[in-house]
This record gives sequence, structure tokens and C-alpha cells, in this order.
Amino acid sequence: MAGTNKSRTQSKQSAGAPAIILVEPQLGENIGTAARAMLNFGLTEMRLVNPRDGWPNPRAVGAASGADMVIEGARVFPDAAAASADIDILFATTARPRDMIKRVVTPTQATAEMRVQAAGGKRCGILFGRERWGLTNDEVVLADTVVTIPSNPAFASFNIAMAVLLIGYEWYRGADATPPAQVDMGRGRLANKAELLGLFAHLEAELDACGFLRVADKRPSMVRNLRNIFQRAGLSEQEARTLRGVISGLADHAHRRWLAESKPDPAKQGVGEGGEV
Amino acid sequence: MAGTNKSRTQSKQSAGAPAIILVEPQLGENIGTAARAMLNFGLTEMRLVNPRDGWPNPRAVGAASGADMVIEGARVFPDAAAASADIDILFATTARPRDMIKRVVTPTQATAEMRVQAAGGKRCGILFGRERWGLTNDEVVLADTVVTIPSNPAFASFNIAMAVLLIGYEWYRGADATPPAQVDMGRGRLANKAELLGLFAHLEAELDACGFLRVADKRPSMVRNLRNIFQRAGLSEQEARTLRGVISGLADHAHRRWLAESKPDPAKQGVGEGGEV
Repeated sequence: MAGTNKSRTQSKQSAGAPAIILVEPQLGENIGTAARAMLNFGLTEMRLVNPRDGWPNPRAVGAASGADMVIEGARVFPDAAAASADIDILFATTARPRDMIKRVVTPTQATAEMRVQAAGGKRCGILFGRERWGLTNDEVVLADTVVTIPSNPAFASFNIAMAVLLIGYEWYRGADATPPAQVDMGRGRLANKAELLGLFAHLEAELDACGFLRVADKRPSMVRNLRNIFQRAGLSEQEARTLRGVISGLADHAHRRWLAESKPDPAKQGVGEGGEV
Repeated sequence: MAGTNKSRTQSKQSAGAPAIILVEPQLGENIGTAARAMLNFGLTEMRLVNPRDGWPNPRAVGAASGADMVIEGARVFPDAAAASADIDILFATTARPRDMIKRVVTPTQATAEMRVQAAGGKRCGILFGRERWGLTNDEVVLADTVVTIPSNPAFASFNIAMAVLLIGYEWYRGADATPPAQVDMGRGRLANKAELLGLFAHLEAELDACGFLRVADKRPSMVRNLRNIFQRAGLSEQEARTLRGVISGLADHAHRRWLAESKPDPAKQGVGEGGEV
């Protein structure tokens, strides 16, 4: 079982993770894409109840896109009861309510409960039904709780791998520390305030020189607005330097053009004399 | 555009929903499964940038499993800039950080922001990259914000339709009122307290009669434990009646057996005389 050893080297995300039990899956492709979806979220234990086309199935391997450890570690059982015999807390996914009195939870709630149970040393599992008609009522009765994915009531039929993906996603999210929003700085770092003030001073000096800020009573608000634009952009130190290069480039070009334009006029020749082209 | 009119009759879930923009998708099957995933969560606006195998694509129709309105309404654009020209707030999905200073959010955060923007009348869109190598850096730069799905760092490559599904799921969840946990009563209703107490009294009377509760100092705790089992089960009115039938059935059988066993013994014949077999 190559999958078993590899699963021990997985991140702690997979410790206590639920077993994914596919009941009589018909298409090998769906088993493979379900395996890929599992591994995307660190789930590694797949159980197959009586897969239609037998096992192993090369189509499943192809569709798994590299999630080989899940496919290789998959175990086959004759029925849902056998596949869940060692499970303490069993969930069953259904798209629609059955005429059956049963606790029904969302994927968010189900995976939160799985984490609580796993922390208490309990093994959790979740049944997924056949592509065409899901789980039988007898299979649903095996479970403690039904999981139903909230969805468009006019189009509520999920591909089996998609349903597996959403459970995996919610399982992973339950212990994921990714901040909701962050700024990826790539290889750079934010410009500090001295670097930003250096940029502002450079820009304002050139704008004073070219006359852009010549209206004295508008100068303070114009400066504030310009500083605010660059403040808001969250510049990196490299970007602040790049912008200073841009300012110098524009100012030098203006200077050169002024020199070039002034040369043909003999009356202005003395003014441009010190400039470099 | 059949899709356009139908989308107006969708639930309010789809009002202001983001446009799903697939950039140079290669396989028609992936376009179809992405369409199915979209409609599962009420998203209906699909845009395709330069799909490899042209458009329309019969493989997409097959894989959409009935999400025809999404496929029929899909529009084709020459590049990502054209596909997002009328979008106010554009997101881009990427699996891995780029060497680019960019705000990065989770799907939960992204769809929460989309709902805020949509409520303000803004159009949102989200770019999904090519199957093999995602979005180019030039395409990522078009977007305001990057969305990265938190996932197993050792296996972070998502099928494109799976990524679309997760965004749709989070979008839908953001306005979904499904309680995290509830008890589906099927066609039944919970037994009320009078019905439960009737069941308890019935059971206890039969247990008194058969001698199960004969140890007087254990009787109170035994009664409490039994009542607690059935209280905890959250019985429906029908189930309470069924259990009373079970009790009667067991008690009557015991009575009949007692009569039958007592008949062969002529000494006891008088005792069983009034019984019916």
C-alpha cells in the first residue's frame, strides 16, 4: 500500500480526516477526479463500495492527475455497511430530503463536527452515492447525519467528484490559517515612510520646477492628493525607486526638449549652454 | 441568446452574480463541467476567451449535464482584456504566488467582496486560467485582486471546473439561509410531550406487569434511563405510535406464550382459561 506510508508524511491537515466512501461508482473517471479533489485538500483515505467496472481501474488513474497515493490506497468493500463498519460517526450526502426523520447539516457544519470527533479520537466517514441515483434509503439509514450542499434548487445535482471536493474544501478550511486578505509582496518589501517621503519630495520638486504647482493656494491640496494616490498604492521599495526614475526621465526629457527647442533661436543660445544632451 | 432571458427568471441568488471568465480553455468537457458547476450555484454568465477548439463545442454541451442555459448564453472574446472590459471589479484565480505585488484573498473573502460590490451596482468578474499553465502575468495584472484557494501545498493544482465550483459555492453560501443543522421530519411531525408521556406510561406499565421493574429501589433510575433514550431520539408522532405497537406486540406475544406454556400443565389450566390464543 504505497498510499498508506505516504499519507503519514502528509501535513497534519490529514490527521483524523474523514474516509471518503464512494458507493457503487460507475465511471472510473469520476473515481479519479474524486481522488484528485481529495488530495487537493489533504484527504487520502478512499473506500469504494462495489465499483461497477472493477478495481483497479486505469481510467481512474488517468483522471486522478497525479493523486496516485489516493488511488493506490483505495480499498474495496461489498456494501456500504461493510465499508463503514469501523467508522464511529458516519455522514451521508444527499441532494434532496428523503421521507425520513434525520438530522441534516451543511458541509460547513458536518466538517466542523468531524473535526470535533476526530479530536476525540473518533473515526469519521462520509458516504457518496451513485452518479445516477445517489444512495438508497437503506444506505442513508446507516448514517448518523445527512449532509446536503446548499445549492440552486432548480439545478441541485452535483457531479460526485464535485461533492467530494466541497467536503474536502470545508474540511481543510476548518483548520486553515490563511488570512482572508493579504498583500503578496513577491520578492519585494513595502517602501518605508522615509522612502515614500523621498519620492514625494522628488516629485514635488520637479513639479515646482516645471510650474505644475505654480498656483500657490491650490498647491497644498494638490500635493495632498498626489501623495494620497501613491500612499494608497502600497508601493514596494523597488516601485518607489522606479517611480523616481520615471520622474527623472520625464523631467530630463522636458529639459532636453527645452534645450533642443531653444537652440535654433540664437537669442536663447546662452540660456541652454550648460545643458547636456 | 436563450441564456440571457432565462437568467432573468433565476432566483435572486444570481442577481449581481460574477461573470465567470475562462481564459483559453482547452477541453470542451471542462467548459461543460464548469457550466454545470456554475448553475449548481445559480451563476449563469460565462465568458470564453479564445477557446482552443472553437465555439460552440458539442463536448461542452454533453458535459454540462443540462446546464444548457449557461452554455447557450456563453460569449466569446479574443482576449482577457476584451472579456473584462465592462467589468468594474476583476478577480483572477491563481494557484501559486506570482512575483508580483498584489492583494490576495481567499474565495470566502472574494465572494464577500463581490456581494458588497454587486449591492453597490458594480459588475464583478473572475478570470480562470488555462488547464495546463493558468493565467499569464499580463492577465493577472488586469485584475484588482488575486484569489487563491487554500489547499494542500503538496497538491495544489485544481481542475478548472473544480475551481469554478468553489467560487460558485462561496458566492451562494454568502446569501444562503440554510440552517447549519436541522432535523428533517419528512412528512411527519415531532411527537408532543403528551404523546411521549403516553408511550412512557405504556412501556412502564408493561414492564411492571412482566416484572422487569420489580426491584423497587432500582425502578426510578431505570425509568429515567429508559425515558431518556426515547426522549433523546426525537421521536415523531408516528414513531411514538409505532413503538407503542412494538410494546403491545412483545407483551401480547409474551402473554400468548405464557398461555401456551401453561396449557400442557393440567395443574395450571385454570389460570390460562380466560386468555385468547
